[in-house]
Amino acid sequence: MRRALSLAQHGPVTGGNPQVGCVLLDAHGEIVAEGWHRGAGTAHAEVDALAQLDDARDLTAQGLASSDPRAAGLTAVVTLEPCNHTGRTGPCAQALIDAGIARVVYAIDDPDARAGGGAERLRAAGIPVIGGVLAEEATDLLTPWLTSVRLGRPWVTVKWASTLDGRTAAADGSSQWITGTASRQRVHDQRAAHDAIAVGTGTVLSDDPSLTARGDGGELLPHQPLPVVFGETPVPATARLREHPAGLIEVGHRDLESALSALTERGVRRLYVEGGPTLASAFLRAGLVDEVLVYLAPLLLGGPRLALDDLGIGTIAEGLRLNIRSVESLGTDLLVTARPQSAPGSHAADRSTLEER
Amino acid sequence: MRRALSLAQHGPVTGGNPQVGCVLLDAHGEIVAEGWHRGAGTAHAEVDALAQLDDARDLTAQGLASSDPRAAGLTAVVTLEPCNHTGRTGPCAQALIDAGIARVVYAIDDPDARAGGGAERLRAAGIPVIGGVLAEEATDLLTPWLTSVRLGRPWVTVKWASTLDGRTAAADGSSQWITGTASRQRVHDQRAAHDAIAVGTGTVLSDDPSLTARGDGGELLPHQPLPVVFGETPVPATARLREHPAGLIEVGHRDLESALSALTERGVRRLYVEGGPTLASAFLRAGLVDEVLVYLAPLLLGGPRLALDDLGIGTIAEGLRLNIRSVESLGTDLLVTARPQSAPGSHAADRSTLEER
Repeated sequence: MRRALSLAQHGPVTGGNPQVGCVLLDAHGEIVAEGWHRGAGTAHAEVDALAQLDDARDLTAQGLASSDPRAAGLTAVVTLEPCNHTGRTGPCAQALIDAGIARVVYAIDDPDARAGGGAERLRAAGIPVIGGVLAEEATDLLTPWLTSVRLGRPWVTVKWASTLDGRTAAADGSSQWITGTASRQRVHDQRAAHDAIAVGTGTVLSDDPSLTARGDGGELLPHQPLPVVFGETPVPATARLREHPAGLIEVGHRDLESALSALTERGVRRLYVEGGPTLASAFLRAGLVDEVLVYLAPLLLGGPRLALDDLGIGTIAEGLRLNIRSVESLGTDLLVTARPQSAPGSHAADRSTLEER
Repeated sequence: MRRALSLAQHGPVTGGNPQVGCVLLDAHGEIVAEGWHRGAGTAHAEVDALAQLDDARDLTAQGLASSDPRAAGLTAVVTLEPCNHTGRTGPCAQALIDAGIARVVYAIDDPDARAGGGAERLRAAGIPVIGGVLAEEATDLLTPWLTSVRLGRPWVTVKWASTLDGRTAAADGSSQWITGTASRQRVHDQRAAHDAIAVGTGTVLSDDPSLTARGDGGELLPHQPLPVVFGETPVPATARLREHPAGLIEVGHRDLESALSALTERGVRRLYVEGGPTLASAFLRAGLVDEVLVYLAPLLLGGPRLALDDLGIGTIAEGLRLNIRSVESLGTDLLVTARPQSAPGSHAADRSTLEER
């Protein structure tokens, strides 16, 4: 299962589908095939592994491989319950049955009402099925996707960069650069790991951001998140956002719930909220935040410009408590990753680490 | 020298005198005596080590020890240049000469104009002297004291506790408790490691703090820092501060430079500025801060209550850049220790560490 989890991570974190890995074992527990899911519209992990088996059989037929792999008698180890759903690909449970798999071991149940029931179908076909193996690790890997499926809205990450005294800009608004190059590159990598980026119209008007995900040479990364602008003010015709390679969504209002519903329908599973303070605070106030990323720069600025404004919190007991998951050094900055204690996956995955600087 | 540095740390960090350690070595490099300075009015490290030698000689005379220790022919290894000054104790340089020490090795020069010149006196007496051994480590240990002597003012530490979004209290002023017990105990330990604590009158009036250094059972720690209140408003007759075991200084104004001079004359080498925002910001604005301690709690509050107010910084380039020295986990909080890049000892000692959480 550890190998399957490792394979799962080869798949993309963006897109509507989860990262899933699969290994096929022979009677001696030796791995005879491996697979993982490469994104919506491509083969699921189980089918990918079975195909590898077919390739190997072809090689054997040609005398190029000495083993004699057959699905009959093999055990399939999958990180997620095999699906029971015909979408752009057929149901994996049936594919495993057809291939003659002898036994199925998986980590976590499929939470998707449409796709669930795979274990049941396998058992109905007389195949022994064991679920819950390394469930915690698999849950940790898939928390954003699982949350998105369960809540019917994207997993929401709110990010900001501030000084150690909580300021995001100097009094005149200047903020280039509070954080160093390592932090800025991390932000680009995080953009590329989300389906969409949310900003408020205030940020568009004041900063004219491009919101692309770029590499350290300035080149566009393969996956570009969809920019989503909240607020009534239209995005100016000359704004950089209008040239974004992934297009542009202007929400036209600040009703977060309805906007998240619409984004979910477009297949957005992971949303990266970049600010400004009004939008970030609105998401937090609404309890719609799953993860907070705070970049802290070794700098003091004082003054009125802050990452968050009012959270509607009157007294300390109402404060929004977080679980810190990690603190990393990025150049001379710190990156604190935390999740609201009330958020899904916050407790289960509270295995905090401080990396050696 | 490493052993001498380790011995030095047995001494108190508070009080007018530096932490100094000394070992006496025989011709084979074996340690025959050790000493350290236990605070103003007590024997300096060299004299302490020589006394240990005398004790050993007494034991030998009584047949209780088999070695035959004599200062004649020994090498003295000291973390600070032996003093040349007669205060409450005599000059160590002369004590070493009188004892017949053959050679002296030390780490850093004594920056005190009154006490310096010990190496010269030793050389004049025909004793070979080597300075600068492990100077960086010794400087690191003594930076607060060295800074205080060189600048003629106390080493100033500014501390605050805030949420991850930089707030020190909720909108209604409630702040008990933003940080956890481990952080609060660390604050008490830090109070005990400073000669004085500074607060503004606003903090006295709003929080009525006791500003004592207490252990985790609530008991008073052996060393109590002197509370110093900045501002014109008198401390109320009923304030807890009036019962502070170390007394109370009411500065009566906010002229930091003159107040620091007066504190220096009273022997204050290390000042711990606890706030509020007005006083902390004034120290930072005046460039009178040597170290910043930021306790960060895993909590978001939003709203108007911040650790610092205006620092007189208009644009990002004027920001007060810090070197982060360490990030520690204290319970669920983080403690970030940093020094202004312009501050003495900031660069030399920039050996940042992130402890494992």
